[in-house]
Amino acid sequence: MRKAALLACDWGTTNLRAWTLDEAGGIVAHREFDLGVSKLKPGEAGERFNREVQPALEAAGLPAILCGMVGSNLGWTVAPYADCPVGVGELAACLVPVEAHAAWVRIVPGVRGPGITGGVDVMRGEETQLMGWLHANPERCRGRHVVCHPGTHAKWMLVEDGKLIRFATAMTGELFAVLGKHSVLKSEAAAEDEAAFEEGLAAAGEGDALAARLFTARARVVGGGAPAESTPSYLSGLLIGSEVAAVPKLLGLSGEEPVDLLGDERLCRLYARALDRRGVAHETFDGEQAAIAGLFALYGMGGSR
Amino acid sequence: MRKAALLACDWGTTNLRAWTLDEAGGIVAHREFDLGVSKLKPGEAGERFNREVQPALEAAGLPAILCGMVGSNLGWTVAPYADCPVGVGELAACLVPVEAHAAWVRIVPGVRGPGITGGVDVMRGEETQLMGWLHANPERCRGRHVVCHPGTHAKWMLVEDGKLIRFATAMTGELFAVLGKHSVLKSEAAAEDEAAFEEGLAAAGEGDALAARLFTARARVVGGGAPAESTPSYLSGLLIGSEVAAVPKLLGLSGEEPVDLLGDERLCRLYARALDRRGVAHETFDGEQAAIAGLFALYGMGGSR
Repeated sequence: MRKAALLACDWGTTNLRAWTLDEAGGIVAHREFDLGVSKLKPGEAGERFNREVQPALEAAGLPAILCGMVGSNLGWTVAPYADCPVGVGELAACLVPVEAHAAWVRIVPGVRGPGITGGVDVMRGEETQLMGWLHANPERCRGRHVVCHPGTHAKWMLVEDGKLIRFATAMTGELFAVLGKHSVLKSEAAAEDEAAFEEGLAAAGEGDALAARLFTARARVVGGGAPAESTPSYLSGLLIGSEVAAVPKLLGLSGEEPVDLLGDERLCRLYARALDRRGVAHETFDGEQAAIAGLFALYGMGGSR
Repeated sequence: MRKAALLACDWGTTNLRAWTLDEAGGIVAHREFDLGVSKLKPGEAGERFNREVQPALEAAGLPAILCGMVGSNLGWTVAPYADCPVGVGELAACLVPVEAHAAWVRIVPGVRGPGITGGVDVMRGEETQLMGWLHANPERCRGRHVVCHPGTHAKWMLVEDGKLIRFATAMTGELFAVLGKHSVLKSEAAAEDEAAFEEGLAAAGEGDALAARLFTARARVVGGGAPAESTPSYLSGLLIGSEVAAVPKLLGLSGEEPVDLLGDERLCRLYARALDRRGVAHETFDGEQAAIAGLFALYGMGGSR
């Protein structure tokens, strides 16, 4: 059996995914924990890490590298944002040590970039996936690439010559969840109606006037006779279609550039359909693999400091 | 004391406002009831009306006219939608009697019009305000007018020669409530920060890419140092600004046409600021007065049938 050399964690708002990796970055063991930072009390992260995460993976004494919201003020130790433009080297140089821990434990900083309305935008966790993906796909380290990471807070990232130049966040996943649970569009049904999803994509238009387009999800049921069970799929298509149509333009793109989808396979498939509809080329990459590769690469570059 | 001749009710999703009116339409008495149709069990509306509303206003035996969601399948008796184009005469001709009630009780139908994405759009209650407003402002019965009714489900209505031609609904108020309570943008603070409201208006752009612009409300706090208490006002400005910029265009307008704001005074003031910022002329009219005038006019025209 291969020997574990590193404990790598993607520790986000809602859960914690942990892997032990061998000296070549191969997975030795994997566990998920219901320890998202939103569920932790202040100061609790370190204690749960020592008491649950390390023992479960037989990783006591191993060096550990963590990315995600664990580096926010809700997490363990605040890892100040690294500013765009940022590549894997800049990020590795900014790893933040966790004080007063027996083992070598480092937190990957989030990234801050220029915002779409003149302020700033921020990410925590997605930067590690992006760096791992770049590391695994060196041909993407030359020239300009548009990378979309679907999710609760979807990220559209502009990469130039291996560095993250700027990005925009869309609350698409959170809108879907919150509207489906707490609004007039709420429903118990699953989002699996392909025709309704396509109908939603068509209703998204060019991503304008979302508050009005959202009401069409209600009107098509109460005024148009569509089945209420089709609402979640329609809503999903509407929100994803709106994002795909409008967000690239906020980054100064035409919206016709090829898109690399990086994330959860099921979500990437939905985004792929939205892109297909607009005639935009795309390729999909696994987000979890990229996160592991990113944590391992950052450890390798920042581990001796 | 003037003698009550009519019980007029605006019976919506969240509450019921009732007035007794004299023979000239003047208010004799007014009461509000926590009896929104969303809180009623099937079949409960009539019983509560008889047991609580009529007695509280000493209106037993008076004719009654009701508008709003009370005419939906959640309400008392379903009043099928009247189709656009519709004026006060068409609406009066479609009043729906409540079966098996001792007194004369009529429900105003909602209105259905062509939807912004090719389907349909619907309203229940706003049509009565609109008709009352037209009745009270006969100069608005000639030519074309754009009327905006802010609210949970804001309505933008296109009126030509006294008839409602088409309209669009924006879920702006509901988005504000749901995001402020259940999302990463949630806050206990009141929406009363004028500077943050203006900042939100500016961040709304042309009403595109709302899911991304919404995240700026988060990033300006966690990445930009803005106080979290200013989030509700920023969110309000962002949502209203987005609606005002984009929804008129969905009705085939340029967005530069003068707007008549019809509704709650405080909300109308916020919309007025959004319109000011875009250089659009506007005038504000009281929604409650319009509702009363509409119910009274419809009773007068439909009462003898």
